[in-house]
Amino acid sequence: MYLPPMLFSKLAPKLTSPSRRLLYSSLANTNTTAAAMKLLYPTSLKLDIQSLEGFSTDLVPYDVKAPIPDSATDADILVTWTNSADNLKDAAKKLTNLKWIQSLAAGPNDVLAAGFPASVRITTGSGLHDKTVAEHALGLLLTAARRFDEMREFQLKKTWPQHLGGAQPDRPKDRFTTLRDANVLIWGYGNIAKTLAPHLTAWGATVKGVARSAGVREGVQVYGEESLPELLPTTDALVMILPGSESTKDVLNAERLKLLPKHAWVVNVGRGTSIDEEALADALEKGELGGAALDVFKTEPLPVSSRLWTTPNVLVSPHAAGGRPQDAEALIAYNLRRFLAGQELRNLV
Amino acid sequence: MYLPPMLFSKLAPKLTSPSRRLLYSSLANTNTTAAAMKLLYPTSLKLDIQSLEGFSTDLVPYDVKAPIPDSATDADILVTWTNSADNLKDAAKKLTNLKWIQSLAAGPNDVLAAGFPASVRITTGSGLHDKTVAEHALGLLLTAARRFDEMREFQLKKTWPQHLGGAQPDRPKDRFTTLRDANVLIWGYGNIAKTLAPHLTAWGATVKGVARSAGVREGVQVYGEESLPELLPTTDALVMILPGSESTKDVLNAERLKLLPKHAWVVNVGRGTSIDEEALADALEKGELGGAALDVFKTEPLPVSSRLWTTPNVLVSPHAAGGRPQDAEALIAYNLRRFLAGQELRNLV
Repeated sequence: MYLPPMLFSKLAPKLTSPSRRLLYSSLANTNTTAAAMKLLYPTSLKLDIQSLEGFSTDLVPYDVKAPIPDSATDADILVTWTNSADNLKDAAKKLTNLKWIQSLAAGPNDVLAAGFPASVRITTGSGLHDKTVAEHALGLLLTAARRFDEMREFQLKKTWPQHLGGAQPDRPKDRFTTLRDANVLIWGYGNIAKTLAPHLTAWGATVKGVARSAGVREGVQVYGEESLPELLPTTDALVMILPGSESTKDVLNAERLKLLPKHAWVVNVGRGTSIDEEALADALEKGELGGAALDVFKTEPLPVSSRLWTTPNVLVSPHAAGGRPQDAEALIAYNLRRFLAGQELRNLV
Repeated sequence: MYLPPMLFSKLAPKLTSPSRRLLYSSLANTNTTAAAMKLLYPTSLKLDIQSLEGFSTDLVPYDVKAPIPDSATDADILVTWTNSADNLKDAAKKLTNLKWIQSLAAGPNDVLAAGFPASVRITTGSGLHDKTVAEHALGLLLTAARRFDEMREFQLKKTWPQHLGGAQPDRPKDRFTTLRDANVLIWGYGNIAKTLAPHLTAWGATVKGVARSAGVREGVQVYGEESLPELLPTTDALVMILPGSESTKDVLNAERLKLLPKHAWVVNVGRGTSIDEEALADALEKGELGGAALDVFKTEPLPVSSRLWTTPNVLVSPHAAGGRPQDAEALIAYNLRRFLAGQELRNLV
């Protein structure tokens, strides 16, 4: 690696921590051919690699579905996106120099399961999916309110759904027909919720949140889970954005579903594990709930045997909310700079 | 009508125009039993009539689907909403004292067709449908971008639409998959467009407008129709919000459709007359257009014989965007006050 002398003389005085001293000595000894850090980046998505240049790092593309090539086994940093399980297992064995994995997924379960040594730091792609998941959630909410699903079914039968068109009651209290004046409760109040909330309030919805820690976040009142019994009965739409973990398993259960009004809709863009699917289907079949627009399921793809395909007022979305990291370069660059500087990384697992 | 003396003495000095002088003399002569203005309000929607009190006006409910009762034939003011054609014809004959009709529809074609004398002023419900139509338009845009329609079809076949879920390209240039970085062109840039635009820009869309008069409206650049040849080729989603009239007939024709990119979607929440439906269906069948989410049609309900039911990537919404006037009381009260004061009315045809 060639480091321009001016840049080197600018950088050198600032290097103090052990990792930086290592870089310093390597650069100082062989300024024109120093052994730079090597970062492997995935070719499974478009990345503006030029925007990652300017660091003392070799940027090397790799195929996330193939074994790691011999020429790459000395990599220090691995960026992952939709890697195959085999690729990750191979990487865990071969990348003996690996220090840090930057996953672009919000939940890097695949990396955690691949058997990397505990010394390898893992950072997530939390934040890269906020806009796209929030947009999908809004789309599901509007589909529920305006019943675009039902319109589609009528269209397939070449039948005009008169009951959905023409003169209609404005904001009836016993139905969810618009975001205006609707009470939307977002359970799992992280960055996606913070991205979504202003779009809902802009349409006239009243947004409240539920999270492990209560407080006011960017103008939205967020409650602890102990407040659910008071919050659910006045909720018109419940948006679930909970991560998958033991503590969130089946948290939307029969008891809590009963607390929702009969017209309430449930939207889930978090993880399928957070809803007791049988209890949800029961509630919908008994008419105790307005509907459920689900982007995530306990088992994906949803098995053909699942009740949910035909449960009344269930909308099946194929885990489509995220899946396209946005502005990944900015996160990689931010963390790469901090890594080279020996600073704490963002989104550390 | 009883006018409290204090209110009367407050009002009286302010009365100067002919109509107010008429009111003045009528009140002055018989302050406790003056013949007040009579306003007929429809029972076809919920109105907060209390909010209309405080004017020198009798507020009388009437059935919009029945003949005008004899007791109401002396009405001065008629508020209309989803009246039957027979009711309006009857009103045109019997309401010989009528001075003003406040329609709650954005386009009061029904009133205009009923044969009222030219001396009767007619005001529209323009503005009462802005929020609800804009919300529907956003819902159709998101349905198009996220293909909730296709998901529904797959669900009916108990099939997981894998191509719509999982890892996906982010903002591909040759498809309309998100509002972020999308170019949305709104043709017919009135109050509905002004309501919709900030919601689109908040998601990262670039919004431009087309209207009869060019200019910047609340931060959005609005062009004249002569700019369409330059604007259409870079449009990802074209939202039509044109009124129905001779001058807007078939304005989205084959020639203009050809100027749109192959991936572009058309959303119509204005009037069906503004699109050449045959040219639209041709373009979609040839794959020259991404899709069309239509809430309005040349003939409604859409006849079973229409090609549009089965044209690829057409979404049929049953004129459902509006149909529920919001905050009608505020418009009626505003115009009623101005009517009594002899001032110009808002939304005068």
